[in-house]
Amino acid sequence: MAKSIFKGFHRLSSLSYSIMAQLSHPASSGSARISSALPAFFSPKPRDFSLPNSSWGPEMMRLYEHYNSQCEVETEGGEKCNGPWRRLPSYNRVIKYATGGVYLSKIIQSKARLFTRNIREPGAAFEYVLFVNSEEQKCVCIFQAGHLLEGPPGHVHGGAIATMIDSVTGTHGTFLSGPVMTGNLNINYRSPIPLGSTLLLESSLDKKEGRKTFISCKVTSTDGSKLHTEATALFVSISVSHLILGK
Amino acid sequence: MAKSIFKGFHRLSSLSYSIMAQLSHPASSGSARISSALPAFFSPKPRDFSLPNSSWGPEMMRLYEHYNSQCEVETEGGEKCNGPWRRLPSYNRVIKYATGGVYLSKIIQSKARLFTRNIREPGAAFEYVLFVNSEEQKCVCIFQAGHLLEGPPGHVHGGAIATMIDSVTGTHGTFLSGPVMTGNLNINYRSPIPLGSTLLLESSLDKKEGRKTFISCKVTSTDGSKLHTEATALFVSISVSHLILGK
Repeated sequence: MAKSIFKGFHRLSSLSYSIMAQLSHPASSGSARISSALPAFFSPKPRDFSLPNSSWGPEMMRLYEHYNSQCEVETEGGEKCNGPWRRLPSYNRVIKYATGGVYLSKIIQSKARLFTRNIREPGAAFEYVLFVNSEEQKCVCIFQAGHLLEGPPGHVHGGAIATMIDSVTGTHGTFLSGPVMTGNLNINYRSPIPLGSTLLLESSLDKKEGRKTFISCKVTSTDGSKLHTEATALFVSISVSHLILGK
Repeated sequence: MAKSIFKGFHRLSSLSYSIMAQLSHPASSGSARISSALPAFFSPKPRDFSLPNSSWGPEMMRLYEHYNSQCEVETEGGEKCNGPWRRLPSYNRVIKYATGGVYLSKIIQSKARLFTRNIREPGAAFEYVLFVNSEEQKCVCIFQAGHLLEGPPGHVHGGAIATMIDSVTGTHGTFLSGPVMTGNLNINYRSPIPLGSTLLLESSLDKKEGRKTFISCKVTSTDGSKLHTEATALFVSISVSHLILGK
């Protein structure tokens, strides 16, 4: 089954599934709508790792509040409506069903966990939350790098940085173009990132050409003044029927 | 201190430290010589993650034996001497002192762990061992991908693949050129890797130009017939005094 689903695929993040569920209900503003439609296996509801926890430092919380406050705005009449940004939920296992019970995958691997969410101890590894802005075709990620991500002594491993870039641009690519796979990642490391840092990843669309989506990503300090890493990514669209039905 | 050591560095793997220790005693054939010279803080000796454990499958073991048997060969006179390959030990924390008591770093972060060795459960995440061949200037890595490395359902995360490529080429770069930092990683994803797969990473020197070392890496099935990922990496040499003394 795995082979039939992924025949010809390069890479597709599990994050895509939460986005697909989210996109199928664009008016919903959180994970509640998704989990309410999930089978009992997932009840009461899967943990959403993109919500604040006790390990988040002041800088992480400040940026979270900054973007989260722009997810819902009040009209002049006092009614609430969607703002320019939307927070994306994040789970650590494959969501078998999307909203409405659409069957996404027959693969049930009870032990498998999303690479970026495979450690439950808050603050130890990847702490991050993504926000997307449809109008500006941008995606931002606030990322706090824990002590289990070490490469050079006291600094974040190049592979952990690549992992965050892949996750953020892959999610952005799926948001822009529907289901995609990563074709290429080209990463330039400019300056090392101390463990414990809070960082901003900004992903922006460069161009779309047929089935290809080109995205750029920068990893900077939270005020944008210090450039740590920059990358380009190429994603290739895959058909939804191929993804969902394995055909 | 961290800043003074890493001023101008991009990335340097902790793995480099084990290599530096290894290289300082080229006639030694394992981790024993290194750990015997370490201060009591590390005693009895740190766990070497590159040795076989119960999670290693038959394919992983077969390849391990294949390369390990070439690390020591018998002469016609019956004496044992170094073979063409050498196994590199792998630890999950910074080694403060190399063989002979050379002081490498003042940073002691008791909780920090190498990203690729941050999960102790055998077989759950990255299981791998590296062998280097000085004469051929090649490095091979046998890698078994555990269930906690998931990206696409049932398959290895692109970031986890990038992490292994960065680790293997970074180690190879250090072996070839002494202390280096990663400047660039350019990765092409050709076909997805099912979770649980055993893979071969082959790293080879392309060229050296001044302070730059260019390395290529392929991720294939263990018999080399299926290409999953290919990459080029650029490493920039850094001075040893800069590394060790922070000057």
